[in-house]
Amino acid sequence: MRTSIATVSLSGPLTEKLTAAARAGFDGVEIFENDLLTSPLTPEEIRTRCADLGLTIDLYQPMRDIEAVPDDEFARNLRRAEHKFRLMRRLGADTVLVCSSVSPNAVDDDALAAAQLRQLAGLASEYDIRVAYEALAWGRHVNTYDHAWRIVEAADHPALGLCLDSFHILARGSDPKAIEDIPGEKIYFLQLADAPQLAMDVLQWSRHYRCFPGQGGLDVAGFLGHVLRAGYDGPLSLEIFNDVFRQADAATTAVDALRSLLVLQESTGVHASPAPVVPTGVAFAELVTTDVEPTAELLTALGFTRTGRHHGKPVDLWEQGEARILVNTGPAARRDGTVLAALGLESPDPAAAAHRAEALLAPVLPRRRTPGDVPLSSVAAPDGTALFFCATRRPELPSWTEDFDPTGQEADGHGIRHIDHLALTQPWHQFDEATLFHRGVLGLDAQDSVDVADPYGLLRSRAVSTADGSVRIALGVGPGPGDDLVRPQHIALACDDLVTTARRFSEAGGHLLSIPANYYEDLAARYGLPEEEWSVYQKLGILYDRDAYGTLRHCYTRTVGRVFFELVQRDGGYRGYGAPNAPVRLAAQRAAAY
Amino acid sequence: MRTSIATVSLSGPLTEKLTAAARAGFDGVEIFENDLLTSPLTPEEIRTRCADLGLTIDLYQPMRDIEAVPDDEFARNLRRAEHKFRLMRRLGADTVLVCSSVSPNAVDDDALAAAQLRQLAGLASEYDIRVAYEALAWGRHVNTYDHAWRIVEAADHPALGLCLDSFHILARGSDPKAIEDIPGEKIYFLQLADAPQLAMDVLQWSRHYRCFPGQGGLDVAGFLGHVLRAGYDGPLSLEIFNDVFRQADAATTAVDALRSLLVLQESTGVHASPAPVVPTGVAFAELVTTDVEPTAELLTALGFTRTGRHHGKPVDLWEQGEARILVNTGPAARRDGTVLAALGLESPDPAAAAHRAEALLAPVLPRRRTPGDVPLSSVAAPDGTALFFCATRRPELPSWTEDFDPTGQEADGHGIRHIDHLALTQPWHQFDEATLFHRGVLGLDAQDSVDVADPYGLLRSRAVSTADGSVRIALGVGPGPGDDLVRPQHIALACDDLVTTARRFSEAGGHLLSIPANYYEDLAARYGLPEEEWSVYQKLGILYDRDAYGTLRHCYTRTVGRVFFELVQRDGGYRGYGAPNAPVRLAAQRAAAY
Repeated sequence: MRTSIATVSLSGPLTEKLTAAARAGFDGVEIFENDLLTSPLTPEEIRTRCADLGLTIDLYQPMRDIEAVPDDEFARNLRRAEHKFRLMRRLGADTVLVCSSVSPNAVDDDALAAAQLRQLAGLASEYDIRVAYEALAWGRHVNTYDHAWRIVEAADHPALGLCLDSFHILARGSDPKAIEDIPGEKIYFLQLADAPQLAMDVLQWSRHYRCFPGQGGLDVAGFLGHVLRAGYDGPLSLEIFNDVFRQADAATTAVDALRSLLVLQESTGVHASPAPVVPTGVAFAELVTTDVEPTAELLTALGFTRTGRHHGKPVDLWEQGEARILVNTGPAARRDGTVLAALGLESPDPAAAAHRAEALLAPVLPRRRTPGDVPLSSVAAPDGTALFFCATRRPELPSWTEDFDPTGQEADGHGIRHIDHLALTQPWHQFDEATLFHRGVLGLDAQDSVDVADPYGLLRSRAVSTADGSVRIALGVGPGPGDDLVRPQHIALACDDLVTTARRFSEAGGHLLSIPANYYEDLAARYGLPEEEWSVYQKLGILYDRDAYGTLRHCYTRTVGRVFFELVQRDGGYRGYGAPNAPVRLAAQRAAAY
Repeated sequence: MRTSIATVSLSGPLTEKLTAAARAGFDGVEIFENDLLTSPLTPEEIRTRCADLGLTIDLYQPMRDIEAVPDDEFARNLRRAEHKFRLMRRLGADTVLVCSSVSPNAVDDDALAAAQLRQLAGLASEYDIRVAYEALAWGRHVNTYDHAWRIVEAADHPALGLCLDSFHILARGSDPKAIEDIPGEKIYFLQLADAPQLAMDVLQWSRHYRCFPGQGGLDVAGFLGHVLRAGYDGPLSLEIFNDVFRQADAATTAVDALRSLLVLQESTGVHASPAPVVPTGVAFAELVTTDVEPTAELLTALGFTRTGRHHGKPVDLWEQGEARILVNTGPAARRDGTVLAALGLESPDPAAAAHRAEALLAPVLPRRRTPGDVPLSSVAAPDGTALFFCATRRPELPSWTEDFDPTGQEADGHGIRHIDHLALTQPWHQFDEATLFHRGVLGLDAQDSVDVADPYGLLRSRAVSTADGSVRIALGVGPGPGDDLVRPQHIALACDDLVTTARRFSEAGGHLLSIPANYYEDLAARYGLPEEEWSVYQKLGILYDRDAYGTLRHCYTRTVGRVFFELVQRDGGYRGYGAPNAPVRLAAQRAAAY
């Protein structure tokens, strides 16, 4: 179906918004009145600019407080409307959005509302314009779609129809099923927005917290199904008021926006993207470093062995069990210190996974291949992490490990089995985008987000994972813009016997983050752990958590550059990430940094 | 009364919180359990630190999910509680907060709750500890203070009383009057918090948006009156969960916090600060500049005359009507460009105004006097602006203008009468503090805050003013931390005939911000202004607004350094600041900056 986006959803001046929408691949835009008023371009210039960019102007919006008002006020409203109809002709826009009135002067009189809307539509039709009437969730007398439809039906004018907005309908808890009873041709326009479940004042909620479909908690896909069964065939348009998007880069937001419509169409069955190829494990994590010694020391102490060297690039492969870490000291190491720059995702069909990612607008990264390399496709996640789709030593496919010349070194290790999860700090402006990306592009499931107290602000964390937990990524975001560039990332390594692994790490010269004694006294009080147990944990700096399924024991290495490691032992099917212990860990890291 | 603050209200590790609370002048603290768990100090060391800082530990908090649970669970809870009682003895804390249960296992059985709380209090009294039971607004079965009181009364134990929290009581809309029927000695603790009126989920509201008394919309003063009439004489304690305070500097937040308690006690009549001395006008605005030429050119084009030169400092006085601008090129001009650094407030009693400010913890600034200067007291506003309390050419008091040697220059000017208002950008972390400061310290009234769309994010603006409008300050805040250091400030100058004043400015070589033509077409549509009127406005860049009282015409100069000027003409008692036009102005300023 055709896709459209309201200019209010994107940041910057109107011309930047239009360019961003066009480059992302949208077919059209809704022009928000304020964006026109603040633009130095004339309406004719805006029309030309849109045409040059291949965008149609699908809607001009909004007209407010038009209907169900006293005669003299309505006469003024009509004069105002006629000004706007003339403007729309100059713009080349043929549909105008009229929001149900919030004016204190509006009266609760459906017949009057219908008569006045009929008159407005009559005037509009002289300019070949259609009026799309929308029930605002906080409209004074008209605030549900069925009420708006009764008025439109009563007005009975060929230039008057409805605009439906998923937010206004779902946020009030209205049942969208009866949309199917509305003739499709009377649904002039469809606006789609999601929102997190916040249970706040609906006006504030709408103005500040809307997000793209699939990023929030509303059933936008179910809603769209009803609208399509009604016979609607106009554009799917996004109208998102969001405090964060207002500050974010318009080009990035526009791509994110269009991706949300692709995923939405897929889940509603109206558009088939290539099927998701869910990864089955983490093939490797790649550290890029300017400072290889402390990284190598840390990996050695953790029990990793340097098993291979890339045949064409300064990249080492370190292994222990199924955990694999690449250490890259090549030209990509422009940044200071050590960063987690890439993930290899074990894929049942790497080519199909890359195809899916590309279809969902993931930026495909240029291949830094040297002659003889195994072909590897990669895309950039919203935080800039490169995601490689790959196969590791599977007979039917070339393995990325073949690019590494064996060092011949072998070692027993310290009991680390595989990479349990990765914790990646996201740009503040793109946290919701990151979740949708990992769900849509990689086919991971998202868990609820949790707040975690750092000494200097609340962090938000949301895990995405496969159903079996073979791939787990904890997406985190700090309290303000910018700190994603300094906040640590980490790699969690799974073992079966944490006490033994942690001891071996310490004996090999590794330093575990030390945890305050007060924590262990609380552990004793909270879980009744015997002293002989918690005193061992205290000595090593091991934290403990329980959920409904099992227990977690975990501890942390010191930070090298921006990266640290966690060692985790999950028992009995524990599903979480130790979030209750995160404030303790964060405070200890702050203290260690002084 | 004694003052206290919960450690959760301040940022940083526990030791920083304690130091900040002590330096601000608090008498005691509530220790939040998580702050203890994350601290490397032992309970004994925390006790000593508090004693050294002159702080008592008034409360240990919180214990959760204790009461109205099955026997085996309660037995575990008692064991957990005993651990905490032992810890409290080591800390030297004698009151513990028990929040009403939110556990899914809690049953709706007041008799069971009372019996178990009685048992808990019995155990507590063995450790000389009192239990303060508090109804959480989202408690599972107990969520109102009168319900909590019925249970405490039924339990009837000398070590069991109530904790009252203004947020939990006022946020639910409970009538606080019946607090007066509770014996004062059974109110063990009082927590005070305000919050903006947000109509959101009460748990989210409480966890993220609490603020200090007087910063929000709850009647905390009325609430306190009821508690005092009940006979409560314990500490007034602040327990504020706020996403912004968590990131802000603890020392600044602590001073802000204590100021809120001083203002609260004053408005409840329990503590008399020196009476407010409300300013009667703006004596001057002071620009500090490294770049005097463009500033002098702009003032000249505006019709100002350089009438005086400070006898001891490189400061010029520019005048027009009652508008006075100081241009300071002295050593304070360390910052780049031109900034608005100080305001002179015309005060009926400058010494008393300074005394009031100091009593309300406004930082008194060192006097940069040269010999023979008229005494001038000044304090720093939260945004760093120096506020001088002064008298201008009033017979009964020395005038600050006497420090300036007349230049002998005179001029007619362009019709500017006085400074209409000042718009000051506030640090993102201190917006609520700024409002309370201007209300408490200066005795100004605060208007509602409004959101304004900039092309790159929402700005929030809140005006503080005298009742007659003789002093008006618009406090603004950008969408994220840090941009207060770059966002422009402005000085609005009042005139009677804006078209004439704006023309003279242009003729004198001044440049007014140019406004898009689309704005004027909308003005015609919206207000039915005749073309001969709006075409004049369009030519000059004049914006237009109406409120319920009158009309506003206004226009803007270009920005010099970080400062620009606005010219305003208020008619018929217009009260606002042209907020509906702010998005147009902001977009035009962005466009002009490219």
